This record gives sequence, C-alpha cells and structure tokens, in this order.
Amino acid sequence: MQLTPSQLRQFDDEGWFFLPDCFREEEVAVLRDEAEAIYASDRKEVWREKTGAPRTAFAAHTYNDAFRILGAHPRLLGPVEQVLGEKLYMHQFKVNAKAAFEGDVWQWHQDYGTWARDDGMPEPRAMNIAVFIDEVMPINGPLMLVPKSHKHGVLAAGHDEATTSYPLWTLDNATVTRLVDAGGIVAPTGKPGSVLMFHGNLVHASAPNITPYPRRIVYLTLCAVSNRIRRPTRPDWIAHRDFAPIAPVADSALLDHARAYRAAAQ
Amino acid sequence: MQLTPSQLRQFDDEGWFFLPDCFREEEVAVLRDEAEAIYASDRKEVWREKTGAPRTAFAAHTYNDAFRILGAHPRLLGPVEQVLGEKLYMHQFKVNAKAAFEGDVWQWHQDYGTWARDDGMPEPRAMNIAVFIDEVMPINGPLMLVPKSHKHGVLAAGHDEATTSYPLWTLDNATVTRLVDAGGIVAPTGKPGSVLMFHGNLVHASAPNITPYPRRIVYLTLCAVSNRIRRPTRPDWIAHRDFAPIAPVADSALLDHARAYRAAAQ
Repeated sequence: MQLTPSQLRQFDDEGWFFLPDCFREEEVAVLRDEAEAIYASDRKEVWREKTGAPRTAFAAHTYNDAFRILGAHPRLLGPVEQVLGEKLYMHQFKVNAKAAFEGDVWQWHQDYGTWARDDGMPEPRAMNIAVFIDEVMPINGPLMLVPKSHKHGVLAAGHDEATTSYPLWTLDNATVTRLVDAGGIVAPTGKPGSVLMFHGNLVHASAPNITPYPRRIVYLTLCAVSNRIRRPTRPDWIAHRDFAPIAPVADSALLDHARAYRAAAQ
Repeated sequence: MQLTPSQLRQFDDEGWFFLPDCFREEEVAVLRDEAEAIYASDRKEVWREKTGAPRTAFAAHTYNDAFRILGAHPRLLGPVEQVLGEKLYMHQFKVNAKAAFEGDVWQWHQDYGTWARDDGMPEPRAMNIAVFIDEVMPINGPLMLVPKSHKHGVLAAGHDEATTSYPLWTLDNATVTRLVDAGGIVAPTGKPGSVLMFHGNLVHASAPNITPYPRRIVYLTLCAVSNRIRRPTRPDWIAHRDFAPIAPVADSALLDHARAYRAAAQ
C-alpha cells in the first residue's frame, strides 16, 4: 500500500491523512472482541477512568495474537515507512476505550512532547496511527486535530495529573486558540476499519463520550529505528525498548487469524 | 410565521424541529454582546461552572431589553401557539454559555421531569426553544436529542447534584441506551440565528465544550397559560410566576433595537 502524492502533500501541509476502509469488518470484529476481553482482565497494562470504566490498555501487541498481527500489518507499516524513509519499531501501542457514557476527555496535547520529555525520543520521526474499531461519529468523542499545528515544534506544556487518570503534558488555552485560529479543527469520522495517521507534533484532543456508542480506537506509534528513545523514564510496556525493525506479516494475516478465531469459537 | 404540515408532523413523530435562519446576524449580534455583559456581572441569576466560567444566566428577559424583546418575539411565540393552541407565558428563560474550553456536560434528562417535580407543572404543554447565538458545530458541545423519546412520559430519574454546578434530574444509562436504540441521536448544528424547538419530554444532553469556540444558546420555555405551575419550589427567577399571556412585539422589534443599540455605541 503506497500513499498518493496528494496524501503525502496533505501530510506535509496539514499533518494528517485519513484512509477509509483500510481494514474490513471481518478483520475489525476480532479486534473488538479481543479488546473487550483485555478490558475485562485485571492486567497492570489496563488503565481505568475515575469511574472504573476502561480508559486504555497498553502493549496489547505483546500479549494478544490479533493485536500482534495488527502491529506488524503492512497496511500500517507501508505508509509510515514511505513517509519516514526507513524501517520502524513500535514505540507505543494502546487500545483506547472512550467507553459509552464514561469515556473521559483527553486534553489538548502533542504526543511528541511526551515522547521527548518522558522517553528521550530525539526527533518527531514517529507516526501516530489510529485504527477505528468502532464507528467514530461526531457525537461519541472523535479525535479533534488542529491542522498545521505540527509546524510549531514542541510547544510549552504543563503536566496535567488532575483532570483524568492519565497524566499528560497539556497545552494552555491561549496556545490552542492561536493554533486553531490559524488551522481550524478537523474531527475525522468513519466506519470501523478506517485509519487516521497524524504527525507526532500535531495538536489533538478528544471530548468525553456521553453517548451509548463506544468509541474504541487502537493507537500505534511507529517510530523510525534510528530515532529510538534514549532516556526512558516510563515502564517498558508504555515506552517499548525493542528497537528491532518490525518485519511485516502477510497482508492476509489478520483476515486469516479472524477466520480461524471465528471457526474456533463456533 | 406558521409551521408547515411536515414540521408539525416531525414534531409529533420525533419531538423536535429546526428553523434555520430564523434571526439574522444583525439581530443575533446584540444578543451576544448583552450575554457577555450579563456573564461579566455578579448577579445572583448568573451560575458558574466549577472553574468559574459562566454556565447559565437566568431571567435575562426581566432585566435586559434585547432579551425582553426576544422573549416576546412573534417568530418564537407563533409556532408554539400553533402547536399548543393557546396563549403562552414564560416559564423559564436561560442564556447557556457552554464556554470555550470550560463549558461542562449537561447529563441526559427531560426538562418536563424537572418542571413537574420541582415546579408542579401539570402537563408537558410547554415548549423548549433553543436560539443559537453562536454557530453550533459538531465539535463545540451541540445539543443531542433522542428522537421519539418524548412518547414515554416522565421517566424515572435521579437527582444529580454532583456532576456539575447545576442540579438536574438525570436518567440512568440503561434507560438512555434503550431510548437511543429505538430513536438514535440527532445533534442539529447551524449558524447563529437558527432555532431548535423540542418537546418538554424529549431526552437530551450536551457534552463538554473543549474547543476555543463558545457555544452560547438562549433557552426559552414557553408554557400554555392554562398549564401554569401549581407548586413552585424554586426561586421566581428560575420558575417564573407571571402567568399573564405574552403579547408579541412587532416582527421588526429586535432588528430596530439592534440598530439603535449599534448607533448608540458609535
């Protein structure tokens, strides 16, 4: 899978691009099932909202087959290798729940700010990848991105440990207002199986989900191997230390796995 | 201004209808200015979020000329008289701020539940009217309505005094899920000057606004005069006691006022 010149230009100009229908329903269904099983477990990698609802599950690609296959999928690796021009390793892997009724806010932030400050990542040569496993709608807490905000480097941020259960380096309102005045806000929506990719310095947030519609998204951060983290302070299941280049699975691997999974369940 | 048969049918079937372009920008601009002046005051009628940002201002039609004119405007009175078949009085009048970055959630609720329980309103013969004075977008905390939910009468509710600064009789998640399964969710958006009317028993909510775009809406509750409240427990600036039928102003009254206001400011 190769990005088109217009997708590459959009990434340069705006810091994001969207790939609808990247995975088919059959492939996504198994990810939804496995996400629920993981959220129901009491692993240390599962973080919860203040209400107890799941917020995020880290590192699922290290302990679950379906997510392991997704983390090495050529439909995700291909475009990022094309943009970054080299082989990739997995810096972070999360399954964010944004649960029905209880999914809380993620305040405005840049991911690379955290990777630089907390993990010692040298440059923003890593891509954020959001794989929708539920339908993302305008009303169930879609990701909001500020186009062009990736051109400002790492912006000053404060460490928010109060708003939610997940500590985050967040931007102040004046900074967000200035960036939105220049670039606006987009909130890409779409069917399960759609994929959104965005620059590590792109400012983004998501509002709480107060609807009955869950909004689960798998987030992969694929980092250029030469850009591996140097001074990690977080556990290795949050900021991974396996810097070996990821070898892609076959394009059919997730579909094959899904069919075997379904057959075994019958 | 008369509703069309298809608007009347939509109200019967779904419990809401939408009137885009009901007021022009010149009319709305004065309401925005006056809302800000009221929010900046320290009147008891102005309630704030936990952060201190304005949440709502009650009874502005009793102490501000622009809102007094809006509260007697034939473009609002006409459709509601047509639906309810009699003269109207003002039960409640609020200017809700849903401030940029700080506007907090309104949990799922029916308004008539509160009017019945707290004010002793005999029947749901009162209309909720939302006059957009900012652009309402998918991302800045639009009202979400559950179509058809007005056909279930007053649903069991619990009194939520914890989530926000505004106590509210709210519905549980199982009830909301059941209603949304049947009716879905709509979140009407539109330019300033658009008007949304909905049934007192229609279930609705709005998510927090974490964007830099304020989302101010004037809410009027016009009640059939024969349906006046019988056992008020809330202050008379929250649940009004003036049951005299409202005499409409001229259709040009708000525009005339806006032009005079602008001339005086120059």
